[in-house]
Amino acid sequence: MHIAIAMFDRFTALDAIGPYEVLNRLPDATVTFVAEEAGEIRSDTRMLGIIADATFDDVPEPDIILVPGGGGTRALLDPDAAIVHWVKHAHTTSTWTTSVCTGSLVLAAAGLLDGLDATTHWAASDLLEGLGAHYTAQRVVEQGKIVTAAGVSSGIDMALALAAHIAGDDYARAIQLGIEYDPQPPFDAGSPAKAGPELVALVRAIAVEPTT
Amino acid sequence: MHIAIAMFDRFTALDAIGPYEVLNRLPDATVTFVAEEAGEIRSDTRMLGIIADATFDDVPEPDIILVPGGGGTRALLDPDAAIVHWVKHAHTTSTWTTSVCTGSLVLAAAGLLDGLDATTHWAASDLLEGLGAHYTAQRVVEQGKIVTAAGVSSGIDMALALAAHIAGDDYARAIQLGIEYDPQPPFDAGSPAKAGPELVALVRAIAVEPTT
Repeated sequence: MHIAIAMFDRFTALDAIGPYEVLNRLPDATVTFVAEEAGEIRSDTRMLGIIADATFDDVPEPDIILVPGGGGTRALLDPDAAIVHWVKHAHTTSTWTTSVCTGSLVLAAAGLLDGLDATTHWAASDLLEGLGAHYTAQRVVEQGKIVTAAGVSSGIDMALALAAHIAGDDYARAIQLGIEYDPQPPFDAGSPAKAGPELVALVRAIAVEPTT
Repeated sequence: MHIAIAMFDRFTALDAIGPYEVLNRLPDATVTFVAEEAGEIRSDTRMLGIIADATFDDVPEPDIILVPGGGGTRALLDPDAAIVHWVKHAHTTSTWTTSVCTGSLVLAAAGLLDGLDATTHWAASDLLEGLGAHYTAQRVVEQGKIVTAAGVSSGIDMALALAAHIAGDDYARAIQLGIEYDPQPPFDAGSPAKAGPELVALVRAIAVEPTT
């Protein structure tokens, strides 16, 4: 089971690392961080560098494709972008093609989401619709082998659902227990519906959404 | 607000990246990944490399210290380990000294948890007790300015609690909404009490806990 996580300048770190921490625990799993060029890739905050160990060309046929989001996705919505080419071709042989947050914009740019239900960060719903998908305000949206997750932290939930499909419910539960994923956020403000319009406005004012 | 996240060989990535994704959104926050030597640090799976941008000596007085866990913590429980020295000294001037997962073992090795309530990954509770702390099966344990979190994913909850202390409840809620942290795990198996003894045995059999 080869899992390729696509890296690009200005990715959002938790989008990638949440699913990584789940999926690396699958039986016989190998996770490779891939990018157009191997080497250091900086996150959206510029405060974190992660190493891409391989290029897209090195990993043409992973079993699982995972595209995280981040402000950097804006620069990738060109059909000639290397990541778009890679996703389009790798998808023809993948078992699962997945995204977190604005990573779904890249899947859409590759033509994978035309007319399909999909999700993304709540602040990027219009962008996703503009690329031909039908934005669906759910945390995880499955359409055959394409699975999109909502903003940033939702990749953990998506990866656990994927783990259950691949290795069974008990194995997925064991992974959940292994990473002690018993979420107890101190507030209940994790979606626009729960947070309300004033907090949505505050998020935009202080720019803590990762899509800017 | 300077946040230093300690890196070491065989750290668990989500322990560090969960809190990073919350804390980098605090007002005027700078996050620096620090290690004994700057450069690439490999995670416990060996599948991920993160860059430490600075050495411990470069960042002697951060406002927030965060020590993640991982299998690598076993090698750090020596009072002469560089990270233990750094934690001990940085703690004298920090505003908050925090850990995720087996990162609390490092705080304990630095003598910070003697006789205090603290938490760690559920599979490491005996180790923590052996280092002089009183293991407490809570997701986040606050003892004055020392805050310890349970296994891996719990660092997100801990960091949101910290954000509320530092910037107020509404700011913390805005961060939660920014990272769309509205957890909906497909199962309810995130703690030993919820998962039951058979799943605990399965976790140990397939070694998906990060403390091995």
